[in-house]
Amino acid sequence: MEQRVSIVTLGVEDLGRSLRFYEALGWRGQEVEETVFFQAGGMAVVLWSRTALAADAGIGDDAGATFGGIALAHNVRSREEVDEVVEQAAIAGAAVTRQPAETFYGGYAGCFRDFDGHVWEIAFNPAFPLDEAGNLTVPSL
Amino acid sequence: MEQRVSIVTLGVEDLGRSLRFYEALGWRGQEVEETVFFQAGGMAVVLWSRTALAADAGIGDDAGATFGGIALAHNVRSREEVDEVVEQAAIAGAAVTRQPAETFYGGYAGCFRDFDGHVWEIAFNPAFPLDEAGNLTVPSL
Repeated sequence: MEQRVSIVTLGVEDLGRSLRFYEALGWRGQEVEETVFFQAGGMAVVLWSRTALAADAGIGDDAGATFGGIALAHNVRSREEVDEVVEQAAIAGAAVTRQPAETFYGGYAGCFRDFDGHVWEIAFNPAFPLDEAGNLTVPSL
Repeated sequence: MEQRVSIVTLGVEDLGRSLRFYEALGWRGQEVEETVFFQAGGMAVVLWSRTALAADAGIGDDAGATFGGIALAHNVRSREEVDEVVEQAAIAGAAVTRQPAETFYGGYAGCFRDFDGHVWEIAFNPAFPLDEAGNLTVPSL
């Protein structure tokens, strides 16, 4: 198994609501058969029915919009950009669970959850370089 | 907010157990302060304490290892590779929730959950091209 992720699929309750949320953050996708595909760097982020996603994976949908133990991070290039994105998400209807603040690793970050409880951390971490295309490199730690 | 994901953090109960699982799939990371960082294409996959992850995001850990409504996909280049990776995961201790089979979108895929319930789909989807580095492109749909 190569060391990469191809697609992150976010299970959602109301596709239109979720699409409007991510569009409010500036994302643009393709909606096809009750599914939205966003190109996200060298991978894809997909919005799809949570019920269908669970069934497709062969598992029961055994929780509500609770913490599933996964968080997505979106790294940016400055503290100001963290503030801007978290504010933009709040305006779009996200629940800000951690206001932007200095972090234990010497960066600056804030967190929000989308309508289905999916956790995003918006982070400025000078130790993890981003190239011009936004690709992140894990440094030698 | 640019259209990309920088890091997917998987909350885990037992870091050593989880590290061994992903190592059994062929991944190699850096372990630093009870955290494992894997370079995964232009992003990172991180293993970290589920409790710490919830606290860090400012939310309660409101579920067990239940379905959190997110699935990760790892796309490969052939049906045979799907079979190989799912078998490798099963040997490493994963619960195979869907045996590899033809899919509704004209591909071939199987699903497993890791020790913490995180869902991976291993998929061959000829409609979503992978470049040599494994970057996925969403086609015009």
